[in-house]
Amino acid sequence: MRIFVNLILFSLIPLAFSNENSSSYLIARPLIFETQLKNINDNVNLHCTSWRFAAETNNLAPWKTIPVECADYVKDYLMGEGYVVDVERVSEEAKVYASSFESNGDGKDIWIFDIDETLLSNLPYYMEHGCGLEVFDHSKFDKWVEKGIAPAIAPSLKLYQKVIDLGYKVILLTGRRENHRVITVENLRNAGFHNWDKLILRSSNDRNKTATMYKSEKREDMVKEGYRIRGNSGDQWSDLLGSAMSERSFKLPNPMYYIP
Amino acid sequence: MRIFVNLILFSLIPLAFSNENSSSYLIARPLIFETQLKNINDNVNLHCTSWRFAAETNNLAPWKTIPVECADYVKDYLMGEGYVVDVERVSEEAKVYASSFESNGDGKDIWIFDIDETLLSNLPYYMEHGCGLEVFDHSKFDKWVEKGIAPAIAPSLKLYQKVIDLGYKVILLTGRRENHRVITVENLRNAGFHNWDKLILRSSNDRNKTATMYKSEKREDMVKEGYRIRGNSGDQWSDLLGSAMSERSFKLPNPMYYIP
Repeated sequence: MRIFVNLILFSLIPLAFSNENSSSYLIARPLIFETQLKNINDNVNLHCTSWRFAAETNNLAPWKTIPVECADYVKDYLMGEGYVVDVERVSEEAKVYASSFESNGDGKDIWIFDIDETLLSNLPYYMEHGCGLEVFDHSKFDKWVEKGIAPAIAPSLKLYQKVIDLGYKVILLTGRRENHRVITVENLRNAGFHNWDKLILRSSNDRNKTATMYKSEKREDMVKEGYRIRGNSGDQWSDLLGSAMSERSFKLPNPMYYIP
Repeated sequence: MRIFVNLILFSLIPLAFSNENSSSYLIARPLIFETQLKNINDNVNLHCTSWRFAAETNNLAPWKTIPVECADYVKDYLMGEGYVVDVERVSEEAKVYASSFESNGDGKDIWIFDIDETLLSNLPYYMEHGCGLEVFDHSKFDKWVEKGIAPAIAPSLKLYQKVIDLGYKVILLTGRRENHRVITVENLRNAGFHNWDKLILRSSNDRNKTATMYKSEKREDMVKEGYRIRGNSGDQWSDLLGSAMSERSFKLPNPMYYIP
């Protein structure tokens, strides 16, 4: 510790005792530089936090990639505590709400979960592909999906188990296609998800629909079959908005991509 | 500058030249304390950003006051650049979207605006009442409303003028009650808002409805009258969700209060 203090001390002595003009010049430059750097960092942080809020509140027009200047910000958020804390909070709030219903035992109360970035995390893939900086590449992403190794989002797994324990029927409603059913089931089971009631994937009929249309239609079917959609968890607003909306929706964070 | 450097220098000298054990002990305590303080600040910042994210994405159960530990965070956000940047972004995104329509000139394209914390700011009131830390007090707030001095939210005024210039009809749909019509009109005009098509306030029939119900019913009426609700700007999800929803909704930030 003394070495550290001495280093500061000795580096300051020449400045403190030298001529007013030259010393203020010498010390002023790095200080101003550091202040500018801090200001730039603060501005980037402010700008990217604002961008993230706009994205998460569905205020942005459809976007394909994240702003270039927010690349580090988004990576830091995803790899740091920010994302974990946010995902945990969504799960906790959903658990409180789920527990507030007294099931009447008719098996008609359902909870819908999206899969990607809701139950399973594709962060290992996106870390290799710019975390939103690269335009989404279907064929590359499909190869990742076909590995079947996407890990569970731990707080979502807890919520999943809780709603099953509470007696809700769980419907998995995903934008993944039918040809990925087997690997998706395998991946989900390996990640700890079991006992869902139905897994709905995009059939060839759904191919040209937006996610909002496709998921709305599927929810409408559920309502027609007499189900009460009590909760819906998804990382995209297209999981949550549209027709036959859930009584409560839970938006998980996703600053990497946007699906209309 | 030299005075500043000398102050640092002289405060460090006794530590640098004193005995190893005592100096490391003396210097270690404030450093550890500062690190702890920084960690506490970082944690509060992380926690309150996460809370704000959950509030703005409608993930929280109905809440009455902000978390006590986030009081300074919310105030700093509102009084600092954060709120301004966020409000400007919502306005800019809405303008881009509003401009994307080619009006067919039938006068049926409408844009709905909420009033409080959307067009007019009650920050002068909330600054005196804890910025969300105090439970909402109707009679105190009414007295503030009756002064009619709430300032315009500048970026919202720009959006307002833009959508009128583009040929949209503007509907103001507010939770304020009919008995505040005169003062509300006066306040709006003084703040620069003119040429709206309709100002809808809560009548006595609407008193026991949630904001979501009341605003949904009013939107349903508009749709029945043949209007196309192209855009809707509000700081509460109860301004935006429900039935007869707008084609695009724009959620302004409001970390101070929640209206169901």
